[in-house]
Amino acid sequence: MKTINIMADVFAANKAAARENRDWFARQGVYAVNLMSSPGAGKTSLLEALLKDCAGMPFCVVTGDLATDNDCARVRRTGVPAVQVNTGRGCHLDAAMVRGALEQLKPAGGIVFIENVGNLVCPTAFDLGEDMRVLILSTTEGEDKPLKYPTSFEIADVVVINKMDISRFVNFDLEKTKANIRAVNPKCRIFTASAKTGKGIYAVKQHILKSALGKIG
Amino acid sequence: MKTINIMADVFAANKAAARENRDWFARQGVYAVNLMSSPGAGKTSLLEALLKDCAGMPFCVVTGDLATDNDCARVRRTGVPAVQVNTGRGCHLDAAMVRGALEQLKPAGGIVFIENVGNLVCPTAFDLGEDMRVLILSTTEGEDKPLKYPTSFEIADVVVINKMDISRFVNFDLEKTKANIRAVNPKCRIFTASAKTGKGIYAVKQHILKSALGKIG
Repeated sequence: MKTINIMADVFAANKAAARENRDWFARQGVYAVNLMSSPGAGKTSLLEALLKDCAGMPFCVVTGDLATDNDCARVRRTGVPAVQVNTGRGCHLDAAMVRGALEQLKPAGGIVFIENVGNLVCPTAFDLGEDMRVLILSTTEGEDKPLKYPTSFEIADVVVINKMDISRFVNFDLEKTKANIRAVNPKCRIFTASAKTGKGIYAVKQHILKSALGKIG
Repeated sequence: MKTINIMADVFAANKAAARENRDWFARQGVYAVNLMSSPGAGKTSLLEALLKDCAGMPFCVVTGDLATDNDCARVRRTGVPAVQVNTGRGCHLDAAMVRGALEQLKPAGGIVFIENVGNLVCPTAFDLGEDMRVLILSTTEGEDKPLKYPTSFEIADVVVINKMDISRFVNFDLEKTKANIRAVNPKCRIFTASAKTGKGIYAVKQHILKSALGKIG
């Protein structure tokens, strides 16, 4: 019982911080996108593809990892400002960490992309105050993941099925995967893409832009 | 500070349960192997490959997932007894969950394989009382994972690089990956394998058997 009370405290503190972020985003006119996935599903590659030719656009990125600033360095090469958060042993970003990074980035309007720690479980439980939750599933992970990690798929606004370029080498069943996603989340938008070849990226980008523009006013 | 004290309590409780498991394993003459990886890296496939033609051997399996008993059903088809633990929203197995499953399986000697929840962060922090920690990294996840998730690689006794059959389709750099593993853990044994084709499985199996037999007496 102790564990439950303990976690309730942690979640309550995060909830308050997320609420502050949400107010702050609204005041700054910022649209925040939280990208979540397993390690290696392609969060950074997807960001690189989405941000290609976007230097000068009102975009910025917060990258989360236990260690290294590799992801941040990769994103910065697109010309879009980015800040790395290292969580040490921490398995997710929380709202306070995101706020700390944004105080460095100082976005005035535009879109903030938050690349969460690679983990298909824990980030689900930590609201960052974001407007959109994008879950990335790669074809190499298998069709059963929506059923086995339902909490992540339940909260997604958008699911991007990435690594479609190698789907045939892993006998990936797209229809089965979509049906499994639909079983836990009938409402989310599903996109197929390859961050590597760029196929399908345009549609994802359009959807994010459209949703962000919809927040204006 | 509160969070730190809180987590210290959770870890202390788990540590005590892990110590009990360790004593219990010693009394039963059981060798316990904890398999950890990202979602979809191939823990269950590797188990299926390792347990092929092993019905009747003194082996049993505990599979951990948030939801579904798919993995357990797959393992049972090898003829080896298995019990599923569903963690709900929980991101790892803990020592008490494993003990609960083993009280159903009642192993008298032999090897217990514990398939942890797919997560490259949290299971690291929860000792299950196991004798061997096997970390599975698939070629599709990228060469940088040992540097980005160092805590998981640090504690591994064995790293199995899986999905070698599709390594060329993802431009996987084996030497770079091995160097990155060595950078965080100079001592672990590294194997390359494909659970799908079976290549490399024999060496992994021999290593586990040899280590388990070394515990006798």
